[in-house]
Amino acid sequence: MITRAALLSTGDELTTGRIADTNAQWLADKLFECGVEVVCTLVVGDFPERLAWAWRQALAQADLVISTGGIGPTADDLTTETVAGVLGVGLVMHEPSADRMRRFFASRGVDPMPENNLKQAMIPAGAVVVDNALGTAPGYRAATPDGRHLVVLPGVPREMKPMVEEQVLPWIRAQRGGEVYLARTFQTFGISESGLDQLVAGVVADDEGRVSFRASFPEVSLRVVVHGAPDVAAARLAAVGDRLRERLGEYCYGEDALTMEQAVGDALTARAWSVAVAESCTGGLVGHRLTNVPGSSAYFVGGVQAYADATKERLLGVPSDVLARHGAVSEETARAMAEGARRALGADVAVSITGIAGPDGGTPEKPVGLVCFGLASSAGTVSATHRLWGTRDWVKLLASQIALDLLRRHALGLPAHDATLFRRR
Amino acid sequence: MITRAALLSTGDELTTGRIADTNAQWLADKLFECGVEVVCTLVVGDFPERLAWAWRQALAQADLVISTGGIGPTADDLTTETVAGVLGVGLVMHEPSADRMRRFFASRGVDPMPENNLKQAMIPAGAVVVDNALGTAPGYRAATPDGRHLVVLPGVPREMKPMVEEQVLPWIRAQRGGEVYLARTFQTFGISESGLDQLVAGVVADDEGRVSFRASFPEVSLRVVVHGAPDVAAARLAAVGDRLRERLGEYCYGEDALTMEQAVGDALTARAWSVAVAESCTGGLVGHRLTNVPGSSAYFVGGVQAYADATKERLLGVPSDVLARHGAVSEETARAMAEGARRALGADVAVSITGIAGPDGGTPEKPVGLVCFGLASSAGTVSATHRLWGTRDWVKLLASQIALDLLRRHALGLPAHDATLFRRR
Repeated sequence: MITRAALLSTGDELTTGRIADTNAQWLADKLFECGVEVVCTLVVGDFPERLAWAWRQALAQADLVISTGGIGPTADDLTTETVAGVLGVGLVMHEPSADRMRRFFASRGVDPMPENNLKQAMIPAGAVVVDNALGTAPGYRAATPDGRHLVVLPGVPREMKPMVEEQVLPWIRAQRGGEVYLARTFQTFGISESGLDQLVAGVVADDEGRVSFRASFPEVSLRVVVHGAPDVAAARLAAVGDRLRERLGEYCYGEDALTMEQAVGDALTARAWSVAVAESCTGGLVGHRLTNVPGSSAYFVGGVQAYADATKERLLGVPSDVLARHGAVSEETARAMAEGARRALGADVAVSITGIAGPDGGTPEKPVGLVCFGLASSAGTVSATHRLWGTRDWVKLLASQIALDLLRRHALGLPAHDATLFRRR
Repeated sequence: MITRAALLSTGDELTTGRIADTNAQWLADKLFECGVEVVCTLVVGDFPERLAWAWRQALAQADLVISTGGIGPTADDLTTETVAGVLGVGLVMHEPSADRMRRFFASRGVDPMPENNLKQAMIPAGAVVVDNALGTAPGYRAATPDGRHLVVLPGVPREMKPMVEEQVLPWIRAQRGGEVYLARTFQTFGISESGLDQLVAGVVADDEGRVSFRASFPEVSLRVVVHGAPDVAAARLAAVGDRLRERLGEYCYGEDALTMEQAVGDALTARAWSVAVAESCTGGLVGHRLTNVPGSSAYFVGGVQAYADATKERLLGVPSDVLARHGAVSEETARAMAEGARRALGADVAVSITGIAGPDGGTPEKPVGLVCFGLASSAGTVSATHRLWGTRDWVKLLASQIALDLLRRHALGLPAHDATLFRRR
């Protein structure tokens, strides 16, 4: 049974710092959900002796090695030769892959195919091909004489990921016998990681599943992994999922890969509401995020990036005496901005943001990080002030998140955020 | 002399896929610029035997090991014990760090300090502290009996990076003797990586410096690294920098860490122009990017996120017959949007974007990826159409980049982009 994996990432682009090793992170995450522990990751450039060293070390540490990169057509792609050496076997041509490559190049008008591509169809004798639907280099898996397993994959993420999801993970699960691992992620906002930890304490028993947290600013997600025979695991996940969902309540805006902007879109769609934005310090980030969702034109009518005071007056009708008396960063201005956007754009609901993103522009009364929010709807106008912290980009991102969650909460009939929530601790 | 480094990244958050190892990328990039080759990166979780294995392997591969993570206050932070074991020395209290910690906690009203923090002030006997200005855990460096070097740093990027820039890199340069490595990066847009490769071919001789490219969508940067005695290297970098700058011409918008939005801000500031935006398919991304620059309120007056046709009419005054005759995605509409934004917001120059970001909404005449741009100024109005490719987020990002570069080019008196440039190849 496979319990311990080592990851091996190959390429000069990694060792010279051109790219980060996101493949290893993605694989570690997937393996974690399968119950396979990653004992180490090794990263080396395209040098024969370093690759050979890395393969020996990786195989000594784990019962499964997953390698990404180094199987392209060029002379510096050395993984397959290295693996054949480690396995003590020769290379054989995988004819179906060679045919597939010839057809691929012919379909693009490149005929005959450059001969160096055929190198990618050579695999160690006895290996099983892992098909690559999106590229020319197939992957493969093989077993060592002492019963360890290795999987060799291309380094291009968009080719590698579907190969893992569709072919490698099912094979790993099968190797693990009857047990399956199932995972669910709950996305939360408006509660700290430690607060979340306390909130769900005791909800999942130690022998039922494993709960972990991931803070990815400005959100915190909670993941639960259960295992057991397929029907047992499915029942367990359903049961702990229900209990967690109930306990998380208003803080959970979505499950698995759902984003905050999708959650807002779903909540608005359920109400058949259109939305407009009025953004000062976020400069357009809320509208950008809302329009990252395909089909958002069904509810997003647009907004005003009311950065200068004159823009707040001219396009949103914020009264000049409100600006003069309370200042641009005030709940009064935020309310007038939201009401103005709702009126000017003819939307059912409008949200506004005005604040001091920094690093300059703060005063003792209105420090950097002070952000006011407004929300106008047929039910009237509400407003809030939060004292945010962090750099300019963090203040903008957190402010956009608060504005989106205000929309979600309003559409779902939930209360607004605790005013002390986002303060520096 | 230090020529080969190994990186060691520690933490369960890495081996369970919670975060990517961006520290290793950042360090590899900095070491590359110093002329130090990274032979491998090792990533392990917080287990004593795995850490000891990783340290032995790393020290066997390189004359410098840089470790990040594993020096916090909790029981699973094991790096310092492991290093002391590898060095064969005991731990000693670094009193200045202990004092600093006590003052840090007292200043936050935590007095007495939780005792487990003192663990962070324990360092291997004989090690030299690397000060941590932004956190409680100091780093340190030490030499092994056989003359290899090791540097131990915290894993938090915002603490680790300044420690490296201000203390570790100067020390490495000093270890390398009289030779220095100097680097300059040129940020480009509007030319492909292969086009850039051809453009600068032969500009830098092999014995003068090393040129490399990095495509980071939607930009391509070119880096040149030179080395030699300090005055020789400085003269070389100045000479090749001048030649590259001249050859790159209009495609280079900035050097080193300058972003496109900063370049636009600089160009607008030089002209004393104010700017407004009118964004349809980008939803606010251009304004968001412009306002990522501190002090952008000096030139950015705001904009309109004119997503719905009604918003284009109501806030920007786009004539309904222009929309009816030419459609929302047309140069005619783009021109009216830019002119409307310039008028409504009272800006010197305004840029507009209207397009089909996908994945739905395309037609045979107006396919997904078709984006029209307008730019209005006192010199009149210009427009352009580009057929972009990629997913929704790529189309939005590339469209925002084209709009920003249009502003930059207009402010600098440069021609607009080649219309065929951004097509799928």
